[in-house]
Amino acid sequence: MAVYSWSEKVMKLLSRMNNFYLAGSCRADCCRFEIEGSQVGWIPPHVTSLLTGYPEVFSSPNGGAVSLCPSLDSYQKRSEAVDAVLQSLRGEDSLGCLKGWRDEKYRVMPKFSDPPLMWMERAATSLFGVKRYGVHINGYTVSNSGEVSMWLGRRSPTKQTYPGLLDNLAAGGLSADVSIKHTLVKECQEEACIPAAIAEKALHVSTVSYTYEDEEGVFPECQFVFDLELPLDFRPRVGDGEVQEFYLLPIDKVKELLATDDFKPNCAMVALDFLIRHSFIDPDTEPFYQEFLAGLHQTL
Amino acid sequence: MAVYSWSEKVMKLLSRMNNFYLAGSCRADCCRFEIEGSQVGWIPPHVTSLLTGYPEVFSSPNGGAVSLCPSLDSYQKRSEAVDAVLQSLRGEDSLGCLKGWRDEKYRVMPKFSDPPLMWMERAATSLFGVKRYGVHINGYTVSNSGEVSMWLGRRSPTKQTYPGLLDNLAAGGLSADVSIKHTLVKECQEEACIPAAIAEKALHVSTVSYTYEDEEGVFPECQFVFDLELPLDFRPRVGDGEVQEFYLLPIDKVKELLATDDFKPNCAMVALDFLIRHSFIDPDTEPFYQEFLAGLHQTL
Repeated sequence: MAVYSWSEKVMKLLSRMNNFYLAGSCRADCCRFEIEGSQVGWIPPHVTSLLTGYPEVFSSPNGGAVSLCPSLDSYQKRSEAVDAVLQSLRGEDSLGCLKGWRDEKYRVMPKFSDPPLMWMERAATSLFGVKRYGVHINGYTVSNSGEVSMWLGRRSPTKQTYPGLLDNLAAGGLSADVSIKHTLVKECQEEACIPAAIAEKALHVSTVSYTYEDEEGVFPECQFVFDLELPLDFRPRVGDGEVQEFYLLPIDKVKELLATDDFKPNCAMVALDFLIRHSFIDPDTEPFYQEFLAGLHQTL
Repeated sequence: MAVYSWSEKVMKLLSRMNNFYLAGSCRADCCRFEIEGSQVGWIPPHVTSLLTGYPEVFSSPNGGAVSLCPSLDSYQKRSEAVDAVLQSLRGEDSLGCLKGWRDEKYRVMPKFSDPPLMWMERAATSLFGVKRYGVHINGYTVSNSGEVSMWLGRRSPTKQTYPGLLDNLAAGGLSADVSIKHTLVKECQEEACIPAAIAEKALHVSTVSYTYEDEEGVFPECQFVFDLELPLDFRPRVGDGEVQEFYLLPIDKVKELLATDDFKPNCAMVALDFLIRHSFIDPDTEPFYQEFLAGLHQTL
């Protein structure tokens, strides 16, 4: 069995989280998902064929694109028509990801800076390769002697996705009509019982962007990253049950863990970004320093 | 005349510095530059045609690639054979960039982590689209009340490239056989008279990667970025004459300037990266936050 170095394991993680860009991905077989002539996602082939059953909502594939019918000419009409299709598909039970229906509305738009053209149920976004945005918070402490430690959560064993894996201090998806800052404060409170007065001190410092595919679809994602230095005497507590336990770990231990399967992959990327920004990785000794940064910021 | 917002001007800067990736760039007409079957650069068409005059060194274009002849089977042989061609072309005076000959040897390899396959004169790298690596240092101060200011240099009016424009505190290219840290300390001493004891406190925190093309060739570059907090009573001084003056500017002023033509473009990118990492740009109000990060980390 091949033995990989830490650097190689991290490169494998970044490559896996960007596998949609690799030769041989489903990308060549995907249709662009277009609304009013602008691309808002990528539809994998198994979904394209299902959508032909709903000609009043989706056009037939044409020039490599599937469009919403032009009669759906408003935010509300588009959202409701697509939601009705998704409810119908959910009933048919053919798409595994719809079993994870959350009743969370995500914005759909060409770019983050564009006005949203519709909303879509969170669990369905991967069927359309619609980009999802979220917030991740690195919680850390600095001891009196200057040693940095990081708070990690372990996800509940009953979480729908990635049960039992290591996670950042707190994280959450960005729903329609909610600000990044608001989401940050809310997730800190709900997941880790961090009072707003502390959470509001978090600093916006980075993003982590990537696109992966799996059997459930295409996942272009962008996480807005915050750093939150916590007081030495503060301990996050399990809140809404999404996390089973919090650990305060020395930064070397975090570095070691992020290259293992014990870490939720995108959370490992967020921790890697922290390590780079806080000067814990040395470009003179880390051969893939530059590739790490490129892998953390891939966008279509 | 169109009036652009600060955000739009920054997006234009990032787009210009990555114009090799845009549709309509010379990329489609470039040959891959290959050594031992591995790509190490991109040769623009006007250079490809000149190289056909040196069949003992360069193969004819074949399958979209120009290769070094296999008889050049060592680091030294390749370096010397290519250098002889470049000296000959320099004498012919047909390539403007060779007027900037510096006698600085840059490493040529597929990736930074690979062993170098040859060295090449710095001024010639754009003719072969060979990636250049450098070091840029953000010098800054934090006042007693917590206000951050940044030291910028203004380049000498007699500099070969970008005369008279704003620059980071110090910067320099990474020559063959020199470490990143060594280059950092050397440039701080030479350009800004910063003693090694202070320069060594600089933190490695990021990279800025981009590829642009202009009439002189293709420029894939990666700058290793350092932050150096300077004591409030320390002033950098003009050293080797590459800089005419240093300024300590409030961070808002730096933000304003980096979107103007007064800033050397890649130095503006390094300052932008600093602003993002130090939380001076808010993703809730900056529409292109995510695109800024993507634009700072483009790699081929």
